[in-house]
Amino acid sequence: MSGTVYLVGAGPGAADLLTLRAARLLGDADIVFYDALVPDEVLFLSKNSIKVKVGKRSGRLSTAQNFINKQLADAARKYKVVVRLKGGDPMLFGRAHEEIAYLEKQRIRVEVVPGVTAALAASAELGVSLTRRGLSRSVVFLTPRRGAGERPNEWVRAALAADTVAIYMGAGEAKAISSALLEAGKPGATPVVMVENASLADARRLFGTLGTLESVAAKSSGGPALILLGEVYRASAIIDAWRDAQSFSSPTVRATRTGRARSSSS
Amino acid sequence: MSGTVYLVGAGPGAADLLTLRAARLLGDADIVFYDALVPDEVLFLSKNSIKVKVGKRSGRLSTAQNFINKQLADAARKYKVVVRLKGGDPMLFGRAHEEIAYLEKQRIRVEVVPGVTAALAASAELGVSLTRRGLSRSVVFLTPRRGAGERPNEWVRAALAADTVAIYMGAGEAKAISSALLEAGKPGATPVVMVENASLADARRLFGTLGTLESVAAKSSGGPALILLGEVYRASAIIDAWRDAQSFSSPTVRATRTGRARSSSS
Repeated sequence: MSGTVYLVGAGPGAADLLTLRAARLLGDADIVFYDALVPDEVLFLSKNSIKVKVGKRSGRLSTAQNFINKQLADAARKYKVVVRLKGGDPMLFGRAHEEIAYLEKQRIRVEVVPGVTAALAASAELGVSLTRRGLSRSVVFLTPRRGAGERPNEWVRAALAADTVAIYMGAGEAKAISSALLEAGKPGATPVVMVENASLADARRLFGTLGTLESVAAKSSGGPALILLGEVYRASAIIDAWRDAQSFSSPTVRATRTGRARSSSS
Repeated sequence: MSGTVYLVGAGPGAADLLTLRAARLLGDADIVFYDALVPDEVLFLSKNSIKVKVGKRSGRLSTAQNFINKQLADAARKYKVVVRLKGGDPMLFGRAHEEIAYLEKQRIRVEVVPGVTAALAASAELGVSLTRRGLSRSVVFLTPRRGAGERPNEWVRAALAADTVAIYMGAGEAKAISSALLEAGKPGATPVVMVENASLADARRLFGTLGTLESVAAKSSGGPALILLGEVYRASAIIDAWRDAQSFSSPTVRATRTGRARSSSS
């Protein structure tokens, strides 16, 4: 009788944006396999478990995923509660499919615990809803990243058709993203916000347009970032520029016991 | 000096899918305004607060929203911690924009606490990832619901362009949804799953195709439901049909301490 592998969403970064269920499972875990992007504050919630870092940077060989699959199966044969902790939510861009398929083939029980995904944390940070009556009734979550054999720029069509666009893992490809979208006819004046380190103390919000996306991304400090595009961001970009113009001092961060508050700019 | 209004995601339904931050704020709240869809188990986390139900059913006059806005502002002038609890995540189809805009105009501080949205809970329930390398690199979240003055079927283009589609608040319009998508050229054989009451003990997963969506929706018991479409669901639909054929007995639900486990069928 093997244990259960729990694919657990670690949320966007702030430890208190974990779900109660995720926190309890981390407390109960015998062993935790975690991604490179999961912060220490989240791992601290799992006091007595063995911690195994399985961070897989994109561009590495796909055998890395096979190795993770095998590690999870081996752990489930040895331990009762095996947690596979994934940044954000496991079912969005998390390669959960490979892990679930492999484990089910091995007759190992899998349970998925959903989490707060980056686009929602970034929206909370901004105070701007992804959807708005009369302006946005659809939002697409996509990534320009692709696996071997996948055609490039298949994501462009989806980005053109939805009212709001959230681009995951795109910060390093800002130039290619803006070129592809501009070429496909998306207006250069489309408002853009890049949210870096959403939910963390060093969160940053960088405003611009599709036409200036490359220079916006250049200001990023290299943390996990989400690119948001759409008319819902038009007002906030204007307000932010106005706030910047009003103040020569550094932005006032309204810190509260709930963690990071919405700052006037940053 | 007025209090703060926290727009808090209540998650998909299961009380332990609330975030730690949301649970703490519910504990600290002086007053909680909650939607019709927030279950009692979640409200129980807020022991000492005044509870105000502001559930607004679609189709009601938009003055209802104005009334909620005003209630929130009034409460913030009286109390320190005002929680506005919204099913799922506040920034997806939650009309957060109206509340934030109104409160900021009144110079009342607003903070947003993200939550687990229904599409992620439904995906966890199914054990099927919204995205998959080589098959789905984009997922659109949309609703066919529209406000006064909005044109119908604007969502269709977004649904056609994305690899996976998650339709919110669409269960009551299944016939109109399938007609619109079929007419626009989406294949009738596109796999469909309807997930009802995701994350709750009475969760149900109903499988079909775009061509049979109306009869799939007819099996629903009327609980909050999400419609998922896309090739990522092809295998699970087949597996589910096979499991149904294997067993004449009622489905075995593997209940665990983490709440509802993935059941073999239901």
